[in-house]
Amino acid sequence: MEITDIDGVLCNGVKEGKLGLGLARFSGNVAGVFTGNRIKAAPVIVCRENISKGYAKGLIVNSGNANAFTGEQGLKDAREMCRIAANLFGCREDEVAVASTGVIGRKLDVEWIRKKAADVYSGLGNSKEHAERFANAIRTTDRFIKKAYSESAKISAVAKGAGMISPNLATMLCFVFTSARFESGELYEILRKAVKPLNRLTVDGDTSTNDTVLLIATGRDKIDRDIFEAELEKVFYSIARQIAKDGEGATKVFEVVVRGAESEKSAELAAKAVANSLLVKTAIFGCDPNWGRIVAAVGYSGAEVDEKISIAFENDEKTVFLVDRGKITGKEEEAREIMKGDFRIIVDLHRGKCTDYAVGCDLGYEYVRINAEYTT
Amino acid sequence: MEITDIDGVLCNGVKEGKLGLGLARFSGNVAGVFTGNRIKAAPVIVCRENISKGYAKGLIVNSGNANAFTGEQGLKDAREMCRIAANLFGCREDEVAVASTGVIGRKLDVEWIRKKAADVYSGLGNSKEHAERFANAIRTTDRFIKKAYSESAKISAVAKGAGMISPNLATMLCFVFTSARFESGELYEILRKAVKPLNRLTVDGDTSTNDTVLLIATGRDKIDRDIFEAELEKVFYSIARQIAKDGEGATKVFEVVVRGAESEKSAELAAKAVANSLLVKTAIFGCDPNWGRIVAAVGYSGAEVDEKISIAFENDEKTVFLVDRGKITGKEEEAREIMKGDFRIIVDLHRGKCTDYAVGCDLGYEYVRINAEYTT
Repeated sequence: MEITDIDGVLCNGVKEGKLGLGLARFSGNVAGVFTGNRIKAAPVIVCRENISKGYAKGLIVNSGNANAFTGEQGLKDAREMCRIAANLFGCREDEVAVASTGVIGRKLDVEWIRKKAADVYSGLGNSKEHAERFANAIRTTDRFIKKAYSESAKISAVAKGAGMISPNLATMLCFVFTSARFESGELYEILRKAVKPLNRLTVDGDTSTNDTVLLIATGRDKIDRDIFEAELEKVFYSIARQIAKDGEGATKVFEVVVRGAESEKSAELAAKAVANSLLVKTAIFGCDPNWGRIVAAVGYSGAEVDEKISIAFENDEKTVFLVDRGKITGKEEEAREIMKGDFRIIVDLHRGKCTDYAVGCDLGYEYVRINAEYTT
Repeated sequence: MEITDIDGVLCNGVKEGKLGLGLARFSGNVAGVFTGNRIKAAPVIVCRENISKGYAKGLIVNSGNANAFTGEQGLKDAREMCRIAANLFGCREDEVAVASTGVIGRKLDVEWIRKKAADVYSGLGNSKEHAERFANAIRTTDRFIKKAYSESAKISAVAKGAGMISPNLATMLCFVFTSARFESGELYEILRKAVKPLNRLTVDGDTSTNDTVLLIATGRDKIDRDIFEAELEKVFYSIARQIAKDGEGATKVFEVVVRGAESEKSAELAAKAVANSLLVKTAIFGCDPNWGRIVAAVGYSGAEVDEKISIAFENDEKTVFLVDRGKITGKEEEAREIMKGDFRIIVDLHRGKCTDYAVGCDLGYEYVRINAEYTT
């Protein structure tokens, strides 16, 4: 199920070398969450302004230039992108959502965008090919397109982003379309909650200036909120795993599940610390069941923890305990087998009832190669 | 100037394969700072207890086994190490400082330590060779011994630790000897302040369970406190740079200096975020003056920041601005030249008067190789 299968959505896109442009036409309520970086790209600032009224009539996205760290000129250019789309869509400039991804610190080539926008607009449609062209237009270093859907909740999402941060600071863009009907305030509440898997996707800790997640609801169908929320979270979870899978040089995806924490916060801190640990990531790359590194990461995470923890590696077939309530089991060889594919690291703190998780990918030579040899 | 040149200090050490044992005999006031990891190794717990009275009569250190994550048995073993040393030194068990470094989660071979301690004790002395044997005994993956001194303040320090965390979680042990005379409370205040360079040494964010820094003052000489404090900080700064230099796979050391911050905290956060950024570390490895990654790191650091920042690369010969109050200068080629050796990244936030710094090293293929191929 493609984004174009959502009732009321038309789209199209074009890619020429490193530059891309995508347009989506719709009319509906919109909610968004954006980067937490203090240095925010111009399109992030403009998009947040434009969708603050709770609805939009279209979306314009470019790739190849992030329009970040571009000052007043950048804001003008981001607004000009909205104006270009508004003229084509026949709506107001402030009714357009906007996003950018690519190199930072360079002036946007607005004329290229203006020229291409006319072509892209004239080819808008709702076929599978249209959805693909849009998805392709927003790619940068992505090895594959990320998409996920829920038929029952009439949700379809498309995203770009690499599990480890890409040379251009790994902007994560995720556009979720649904024909469900929700008030804009409700839509924002739903998004804030359901977006959790993307916040549990730990990369290398570097946060882009351009990260943007939009939830666009065309309002054609009545869908139960609880069902919708649960399905939306599943969609984001799938996107998060796909982004991790596409990590630069990543050979496998792993998940850290923390159980038995005293507080939600402890569970979150511990899960993120383990998934972010360079030592854990490199050990996973080398299939080395070095649980000591996991203990250390939990220890410095800020979570309440003592030595009575349990650590297990798990895949869909079995669970191997390396540490059982502080006792070392010596099952390294069994654990090593599990590490050959995607797997889960289970950490039980045995101190309470709270649980949380994080999704990560391993770190190998390719990551260094890609990031050391990239030239500004 | 070796640690054995400090009036009142005798030492000796032995290394057999991966196992090492060092003893130091003295009588003086002691202050210590230890790992912030919630999972603390047994020797850290025992050492903190023993030096809490403000003085000690000797030090016993082993390498090859961290005696961490070893529960009640670990505490017993750490106390047994103190007892072994106390019997030799003719003092009380709780008058001995203790430290360990090495693999975690394995029971300590106390018998090996007992046997070697007698030999090491009988060979105690104050020659250069004795200092070298002690330094060598505490090494694990270190490619070289770290030491620094101040003649004027009568300080000599020896340390072990690799700039990026070593397979054994990069325990940093640093023993500073001085013949200066300070009350134990004063000694602790001095240490807390002067140890800053070691806290500004950013590695890969992974904190060991065993980190221990001891300041041992034999009290033979009267030295002005201000001078002593300044000299001690220089000693720690030198040790920090040596540890960074010995980073696993590191080819160069860099320093991030943040100026013009609104608060001390902002300056610290920004400096550490840049020095810790994987993207910055890999860019430095590849001599890529990708200042966008620095902007992004400052942006997510939590520091107050806007686009009007300046970024320059600097060595002892020149300073090259890449961004000047938000304006991009285009001097990437000049910056690339500077990146070929050790250099400083200057970030001026132009918002206030606070300043801070961090010391780091680059990250290359060797880091991945060492950490992926290490086997527990």
